[in-house]
Amino acid sequence: MTEKLSDTARETLLPPLTANGWTVSEDGKKLSKSFKFEDFPEAFGFMTRAAIYAEKWNHHPEWSNVYNTVDVDLTTHDVGGLSALDAKLARKMDQLI
Amino acid sequence: MTEKLSDTARETLLPPLTANGWTVSEDGKKLSKSFKFEDFPEAFGFMTRAAIYAEKWNHHPEWSNVYNTVDVDLTTHDVGGLSALDAKLARKMDQLI
Repeated sequence: MTEKLSDTARETLLPPLTANGWTVSEDGKKLSKSFKFEDFPEAFGFMTRAAIYAEKWNHHPEWSNVYNTVDVDLTTHDVGGLSALDAKLARKMDQLI
Repeated sequence: MTEKLSDTARETLLPPLTANGWTVSEDGKKLSKSFKFEDFPEAFGFMTRAAIYAEKWNHHPEWSNVYNTVDVDLTTHDVGGLSALDAKLARKMDQLI
């Protein structure tokens, strides 16, 4: 079951992500990061790797790509905020760069 | 050489695209289309196919993806507007859905 992160879970899960370039939106409902790559193949390769996990975990990013940049927003609409899946996908994306 | 589309070229190249769901921005500098798919794998599969041509032709879209939707903007920054490459990539994308 996907549940909204508790305050305690946020205090555990979010700081390592914000230390790694993720930002939490003002309303606390969204994790965002802008990834920069060498060129388009590198950027799209990253998206492809991330897409496989997104589908596997049935948790999909909202993202955009302009040449070597990939802007990612993560949120869990079902819970109206952040869930453990957002933190999990964010961590995975950082491993996939 | 990439050149800005002449008025004559626009009259030839753009109507088949707008008839197929593309819109030209008010300033005439951008072609846009929102593609809808069955699900995320279909949407991302489309992006992957399009990415290969984008890189091959060294002409990259500005695009975003949310689950089964892919929103595409095409423009040619080098010429400050639309070039034949935008029309070519738009046509190709329509073939790749």
